[in-house]
Amino acid sequence: MQVFLSLLPPGEAWRRLEEHLECGPRRVEMVDLLDAHGRVLAEDVTSPADLPGFPRSTVDGFAVRARDTFGATESMPALLAVAGEVRIGDAPCFALRPGECARVATGAMLPQGADAVVMVEATMETGGNLVAVEKAVAPGENAIGPAEDVARGAVLLKKGARLRPQDIGALAAAGVSRVKVAAKPNVAIMSTGDELVEVAATPPPGKVRDTNLYSLCAAVLAAGGRPLAAGIVRDDYQELAAAMRERLASADMLVVSGGSSIGARDFTRDAIDSLGPPGVLVHGVAVKPGKPTIIAVAGGKPVFGLPGHPVSCLTVFRLFVEPAIARWMGTVPERRELVARLGANVPSAAGREDYVGVHVVTRDGEVWADPVFTKSSLISGLVASTGIIRIPADAEGLEKGARVTVSLLF
Amino acid sequence: MQVFLSLLPPGEAWRRLEEHLECGPRRVEMVDLLDAHGRVLAEDVTSPADLPGFPRSTVDGFAVRARDTFGATESMPALLAVAGEVRIGDAPCFALRPGECARVATGAMLPQGADAVVMVEATMETGGNLVAVEKAVAPGENAIGPAEDVARGAVLLKKGARLRPQDIGALAAAGVSRVKVAAKPNVAIMSTGDELVEVAATPPPGKVRDTNLYSLCAAVLAAGGRPLAAGIVRDDYQELAAAMRERLASADMLVVSGGSSIGARDFTRDAIDSLGPPGVLVHGVAVKPGKPTIIAVAGGKPVFGLPGHPVSCLTVFRLFVEPAIARWMGTVPERRELVARLGANVPSAAGREDYVGVHVVTRDGEVWADPVFTKSSLISGLVASTGIIRIPADAEGLEKGARVTVSLLF
Repeated sequence: MQVFLSLLPPGEAWRRLEEHLECGPRRVEMVDLLDAHGRVLAEDVTSPADLPGFPRSTVDGFAVRARDTFGATESMPALLAVAGEVRIGDAPCFALRPGECARVATGAMLPQGADAVVMVEATMETGGNLVAVEKAVAPGENAIGPAEDVARGAVLLKKGARLRPQDIGALAAAGVSRVKVAAKPNVAIMSTGDELVEVAATPPPGKVRDTNLYSLCAAVLAAGGRPLAAGIVRDDYQELAAAMRERLASADMLVVSGGSSIGARDFTRDAIDSLGPPGVLVHGVAVKPGKPTIIAVAGGKPVFGLPGHPVSCLTVFRLFVEPAIARWMGTVPERRELVARLGANVPSAAGREDYVGVHVVTRDGEVWADPVFTKSSLISGLVASTGIIRIPADAEGLEKGARVTVSLLF
Repeated sequence: MQVFLSLLPPGEAWRRLEEHLECGPRRVEMVDLLDAHGRVLAEDVTSPADLPGFPRSTVDGFAVRARDTFGATESMPALLAVAGEVRIGDAPCFALRPGECARVATGAMLPQGADAVVMVEATMETGGNLVAVEKAVAPGENAIGPAEDVARGAVLLKKGARLRPQDIGALAAAGVSRVKVAAKPNVAIMSTGDELVEVAATPPPGKVRDTNLYSLCAAVLAAGGRPLAAGIVRDDYQELAAAMRERLASADMLVVSGGSSIGARDFTRDAIDSLGPPGVLVHGVAVKPGKPTIIAVAGGKPVFGLPGHPVSCLTVFRLFVEPAIARWMGTVPERRELVARLGANVPSAAGREDYVGVHVVTRDGEVWADPVFTKSSLISGLVASTGIIRIPADAEGLEKGARVTVSLLF
């Protein structure tokens, strides 16, 4: 009976996996810009147009030749003749001659000859066709020149960018209405364990519901993948290996949780190892919770054996599966964190990274992370947690008041 | 011509809106637990079962009566007779008598009489039917009692919770396979302005593409709503009022961007005001960017007139529309922020809240927020920004090195 695993530090475990995983996107698809939110760009996007395409006013006021305003003050205004008005959306059909100005709205095109705009608040209409400009403006002031925002041919967004609303706005402005994005990897989720029953069933004594299928499907969605719920498989080497082979064939990645009973732990490892080379790369990681983690690659596809404990399972998902999903798409996991001061001392064993759930609250105007102390297998502790903090392997704990980075739990 | 708006502080503007908005969920629906990720609970969920439902081991080892191990050490082990084995998923058919133990796997049910578990690493099998226990355990050690995680009838998750993977795991563990969640509010998105053309079109001089339709649809998705893209409406009071009325009738909320040309600004406000009581509550907010914001309620539905500038538009969305969507669902916006040190001095006018885009980088082991200084109407500045920082109305700026909270931009 194998009791002791040889434990790898999590960074080293990730590197062993990473070197077998081609950087994505491993598959691409075209999507309409309205469906592109949160998707990962599969290639650099260069702007097909200058933004803006013409000189625009950024205020309501009067377009001027800046030099005509030099020296103007409230007591010594510059008097300019109004040559016309440019309404937003119109192309002006006149040019400014020296001593002339044009009424413009925010966003309107400047007439030829104009190189700045005086805000309406700094002008006084004097009757007739004259405007008194009470403040000098520099060339370019209150205006945007052609291509000043983005030049045609410049990289607007880089490969690997996760499209946020403002990125989608920039693509729309440049006229990019469809984008090539990384496909979402299909991640098969399987649970193993003779103790498991479906969520809708009432477990008899000794059995429990299959929690991880649900939490892992949600975690895959949060990470940008597409979960394929593959159900419960018995703790049996033949059944497990056959089910894994079938699921992996139609997926890009496989996540198996459980198999933590004494013999089954080896079944799971052996079944994963049977899927093809290079096979199991890591069995055992120096983290708490999450020690009995298995990491493998078969036919270029990552395969994970996660601990059956719901809390360990999600912690390890965050450490290895989420980065693997991101790498498959050609990006890195989203940063979702905040900085807080630790609300209580947290002891830890040296030589192992500890992850501790914390509840984040604001007290006395400061943000505090209060450790949620529960037995590691209690899901109520994770429900009560805003996020987790990491205690490095070389620390024997963290003291109350220390600044910690809280990784938000999805 | 109305040039000066009477500007409200953003907190006051929000309060005026909030008092007209019933706290949600305004509509509910039942969803399967596999589809519940990110949804907002419409009611408290109490656990229909004790978790766990039976006493379980949290380690591989031997279930014992704790008192039988008291005083045991490596040199003076307690010798216990193995009464049987409990495999995971099984209900033991025997009870422990004094001096007996049972082999158990992680997660297995404890036999009657057992109240603790000795880890296998602290035992030695001596041959025959005896096990030497080399370490004393306290009652409850390495075990979880019935209902120790969650008791039947206890509130598992509260109304308003946004369901994360661990929450979904907890619901699955308790056997809750369908949940009542807030419906996603339908948010109609409309753009107004004679300068706007569809994104697929090539704008002639003076005209620009309709950026905000796309960025706002994405922002609504990010906030948990369902965007209804309603297209471009001309700067005309009658057309605008008719289009707004039609769209609002089939939506829960309406967001109109643009209408920032001189006359159109009033059209937009008047058209919004025509939708019904109480009408326009706020016109003009003391923020930069975002000053010409309009906030209204008609027939219990919020209506927003956002500035046409893409940057102002998204900034104001974050300040008012996202909280309104959250309130409609009966929750609050998600916290997505991090703390950093400011990379450069940022000046600001007192009396107005300033929002400045920052790019977050790690330098010398510290997280820095470098201000992205661009003209406020440049979308490239927002694309380059990781998030925004807020400079309070009573500050005249922030100094380099100051700790700032960065709100991540979606």
